Amino acid sequence: MNDAPIGVFDSGVGGLSCVEELIRLMPNEDIVYLGDTARVPYGTRSRDTIISYAGEDISFLKKHKVKMILVACGTVSSVLESIKDECGDIPVSGVVMPAVRAAYEATQNGRIGIIATGASIKTGSYDRKLRELDDKLAIIGKACPMLVPLAENGYTSPDCPPARFFTEEYLKDIKAMNVDTLILGCTHFPHFSDVISEYMGGGVKLISSSAELAAHAAAELERCDQRSSKSSQGRIELFCTDSAQLFAENVRKFLGRDINAGISKCSLK
Amino acid sequence: MNDAPIGVFDSGVGGLSCVEELIRLMPNEDIVYLGDTARVPYGTRSRDTIISYAGEDISFLKKHKVKMILVACGTVSSVLESIKDECGDIPVSGVVMPAVRAAYEATQNGRIGIIATGASIKTGSYDRKLRELDDKLAIIGKACPMLVPLAENGYTSPDCPPARFFTEEYLKDIKAMNVDTLILGCTHFPHFSDVISEYMGGGVKLISSSAELAAHAAAELERCDQRSSKSSQGRIELFCTDSAQLFAENVRKFLGRDINAGISKCSLK
Repeated sequence: MNDAPIGVFDSGVGGLSCVEELIRLMPNEDIVYLGDTARVPYGTRSRDTIISYAGEDISFLKKHKVKMILVACGTVSSVLESIKDECGDIPVSGVVMPAVRAAYEATQNGRIGIIATGASIKTGSYDRKLRELDDKLAIIGKACPMLVPLAENGYTSPDCPPARFFTEEYLKDIKAMNVDTLILGCTHFPHFSDVISEYMGGGVKLISSSAELAAHAAAELERCDQRSSKSSQGRIELFCTDSAQLFAENVRKFLGRDINAGISKCSLK
Repeated sequence: MNDAPIGVFDSGVGGLSCVEELIRLMPNEDIVYLGDTARVPYGTRSRDTIISYAGEDISFLKKHKVKMILVACGTVSSVLESIKDECGDIPVSGVVMPAVRAAYEATQNGRIGIIATGASIKTGSYDRKLRELDDKLAIIGKACPMLVPLAENGYTSPDCPPARFFTEEYLKDIKAMNVDTLILGCTHFPHFSDVISEYMGGGVKLISSSAELAAHAAAELERCDQRSSKSSQGRIELFCTDSAQLFAENVRKFLGRDINAGISKCSLK
């Protein structure tokens, strides 16, 4: 048993899709979430800058004595090997491996698509991990930079013409390749599940990287006997690096409702 | 005469629309440009964060011994009063006043629209300055957050469905108000001139905040006898806070071509 909180971070609000799943799976766990909103987004930045920002995010979570660090950001997860040392003894997981394993289990025809930020696609992290499992897989990845601001501004529904336009723009080559499994490799993308399913067809299985990371975290805590002993609802604390009021507004826009959690501005210096 | 460079800054590549206009008006001037690409965009951040980032941008330009600082960013220009002290003796201008004066001169019916980032609209800076000139003007402002990523990813043409969708989404109330003048209050927005003109109708005069700032700078340097004495083409130096290679790629996407300038990564610490 371990009553310390689970630490989760992302560049902004995207990682809250993972937090929601964690609450659903393990309602009694305390969670400390950091969104680096003074520097969001990460997915358009260089590898060096992403590693440097992620190091500061991890230091912040370590000060909160978390029992586990979840990188609920596809971009940072793509450079996980380069930030592991920063976590010291605290176990850390990103979205890449859980999503890759789920996709590998789901595919029947061995054809897998990946959509993610520009930075994630550039690292080739999803491809590499999939090929380590099976080098005969047919894999196609596509950077989808416009989906992040669309999600942050609430334009995600199948009724929304730009959501449909960019879904087709980014997914047409992947669809043409006849994939049966598609990894949503950025924590913003589960918000487009409906419009993506409609375009790709119901036969294509969508792998939500946030949900897979949350499931992986729950299984790991169980396996290592590190679940919380509390019987009451866990405490959710959200930290952001820009204004707390602005963060609350963006959470509402992103989740479509308020979240039952304290929100504080923090400094990473 | 003064052969020192003109300093220009923006959060990213947007301010290059002002640099292009400066080169056209004063080809012999040296220019030092800073794009804070490790923290772009500014237009979604809080006032305090914008002021803090702008202070660091100004310190950087001061080290380069610039003779004038141009804030080629609508968002920072909206908090110009709060950053003026940082500039010391160096004259500083933002995009708000030049655009406001041009709009006031252009309007016939006294009805003026303003489109800008969320942060700029929140400060009410354009409204306030227009009302100082004439409190009987009818003014309507609208935040257009999606236009920035659309411009940065090259989706600006009238043939592009999302450019048309967001133009209508953001401009329908402004059009209904029968304005005859529209301020493009963010340095990314001149890229949408065609699609905006098509939607608003040819009778509506578009005021480019970048072009007005460049014209203002040229007039000020002339008036104070601070123009460069050089007869050769000026030297353009671009600095960015994230990778220089990434910046070069984004410049190409934003301007539709390369720019004849050195590009270096710098640190603001």
